Amino acid sequence: MNYPIPDDLIALIRQSQRVLCVSHVNPDGDAYGSLLGMTWLLRSLGKQATPVMQDALLDEFRFLPGAGEILAPHQAGTNFDLVLSLDASSPDRIGDVYDATCHNQIPLGVIDHHITNTRFGLVNWVEPRCAATCQMVAYLAAGLAVPITEPLATCLMTGVITDTLGFRTNSTTPDVLAVAMLLQRDGADLAGIVQRTLNRMPFSALRLWSLVLPEMQLEDGVLWAAVRRDQLEAAGQHTDDSKLNSIFSTIMEADISAVFTEKIGENGQMAVECSFRAKPGFNVGDLAFSLGGGGHPPASGCTVVGLLADVLATVVPALKATRRRQANPATE
Amino acid sequence: MNYPIPDDLIALIRQSQRVLCVSHVNPDGDAYGSLLGMTWLLRSLGKQATPVMQDALLDEFRFLPGAGEILAPHQAGTNFDLVLSLDASSPDRIGDVYDATCHNQIPLGVIDHHITNTRFGLVNWVEPRCAATCQMVAYLAAGLAVPITEPLATCLMTGVITDTLGFRTNSTTPDVLAVAMLLQRDGADLAGIVQRTLNRMPFSALRLWSLVLPEMQLEDGVLWAAVRRDQLEAAGQHTDDSKLNSIFSTIMEADISAVFTEKIGENGQMAVECSFRAKPGFNVGDLAFSLGGGGHPPASGCTVVGLLADVLATVVPALKATRRRQANPATE
Repeated sequence: MNYPIPDDLIALIRQSQRVLCVSHVNPDGDAYGSLLGMTWLLRSLGKQATPVMQDALLDEFRFLPGAGEILAPHQAGTNFDLVLSLDASSPDRIGDVYDATCHNQIPLGVIDHHITNTRFGLVNWVEPRCAATCQMVAYLAAGLAVPITEPLATCLMTGVITDTLGFRTNSTTPDVLAVAMLLQRDGADLAGIVQRTLNRMPFSALRLWSLVLPEMQLEDGVLWAAVRRDQLEAAGQHTDDSKLNSIFSTIMEADISAVFTEKIGENGQMAVECSFRAKPGFNVGDLAFSLGGGGHPPASGCTVVGLLADVLATVVPALKATRRRQANPATE
Repeated sequence: MNYPIPDDLIALIRQSQRVLCVSHVNPDGDAYGSLLGMTWLLRSLGKQATPVMQDALLDEFRFLPGAGEILAPHQAGTNFDLVLSLDASSPDRIGDVYDATCHNQIPLGVIDHHITNTRFGLVNWVEPRCAATCQMVAYLAAGLAVPITEPLATCLMTGVITDTLGFRTNSTTPDVLAVAMLLQRDGADLAGIVQRTLNRMPFSALRLWSLVLPEMQLEDGVLWAAVRRDQLEAAGQHTDDSKLNSIFSTIMEADISAVFTEKIGENGQMAVECSFRAKPGFNVGDLAFSLGGGGHPPASGCTVVGLLADVLATVVPALKATRRRQANPATE
């Protein structure tokens, strides 16, 4: 096996009878998929498994088999002999579900693919080479000789699809495709899960685009748009502009793109949330870092205190300078 | 092998020395990928292979290994002992490259995954269970014991990615994922190819969205927008609106979406090109068919003669009626 599972983890699971399964706050597809996948896996082994999450169930993950059984922290009870934490990189990410006083008496197993995992369990299986914690749970099922049923396959495929943006990230290795192939063979509806998770946007987001796009600008290979607070309000509730820069990053004429969103900061000051994207060969990670943010060469972000116009006047020239410096003069 | 290769085809290829490789007009990623993939495969076997295409090389496929060697019909010469047609469903799809008078003397092998293939070759390998002709060429390489080199893997992965929209279509079977896994192992840069093909849109398309989106409408679960000729002109050259309805089809509040594009028809009459999309459980195929067009339940289209306003006044109510009839009354 390319991804060795700690013997201690296998032993912990085999010895347990009543397992509390937890994941992280602000849950994504991999949080739901690994939490519910582990629940199905444990039940296949004849264990009692209780999935618990701090956040209320998100509409887009309601289709997951078992989603309706996820309990809120106050409903969970305390009668457990094992806690399994899935896809959470540190205890605080679990939220109110994890109660140190109460749960310190019970062994804690950590299963996670984040390189930043703090290894806070009694046993820790941290595998950053996996694109999703769901990929790890698929290996765990094989390690425990649990057959992958259709509900289990659906849960695990969801995490694999969402964490790889549909097999489009650099983390999508041949092993990811191999796991996806097995999960599809075992009954996961690939096209259907993509439709329910990735291909899903509220109308308010499109309304926001209609307000913002007429003022976008493309200069010197840098494409950017600003989102004012009045535009966010006009577009409607629950609007988010996170997919706008994904579209910008596909524009052929732009090497670097940015979306600037006007916010009121924690202390009431005006601030601007900056999202940067760069084509291969360009790097927006350093600029975000120098502005107090973080990220990676192809995608980064930061929050800059100030009025929108002032932030644009500073950051847009910096983006253009970054692009100019990084563009190969021979191909310009 | 799940996809048996005709012995005749294997024999034809083994006996040949100078092979003319052709594909179809209006080439897509699978046309380029299978044409160049076959060229690499044949060269691995020690054959002389000449890829020829009627259309000039599209910019977005310039990255494909060997793309610069594709010849125009008049450059191809006539000294061949085998013609292989890839991804073309009928001789007319090949365009000027195929000259019946000249090429009738030479055996013709047809390799294609379209169910509509007219089996116009001496030997025909038509495999509609494959999502891409590139998938078939990967099996052919295995059948001929040709190792998959990095250039071959890159060409074949491109066709698999583009014909499945990045593993998102219903045609994406576990076998497709298995082939993709092998091609990635053999050196194809999955994320890079997605970036160069699917994630690529001209700025003029975004400019068109900025003109069109402010007037879009969502009523009764139907989302639609009209694209006027003056908007197409204002957005700039080479604008196409094909991706707009893909975005519309992700909007949660819409079960059916449509984009109406104003055109001047062949005889100078005003006409409107209609593109329809439907969520799972809804069907826009029948409406398009009844309007003289065609397609499938989830995606269809038609061209309706008439002024934009008149066509909207007819077709939008028909879409709403379709949606109303198909919506489950219990969940409305």
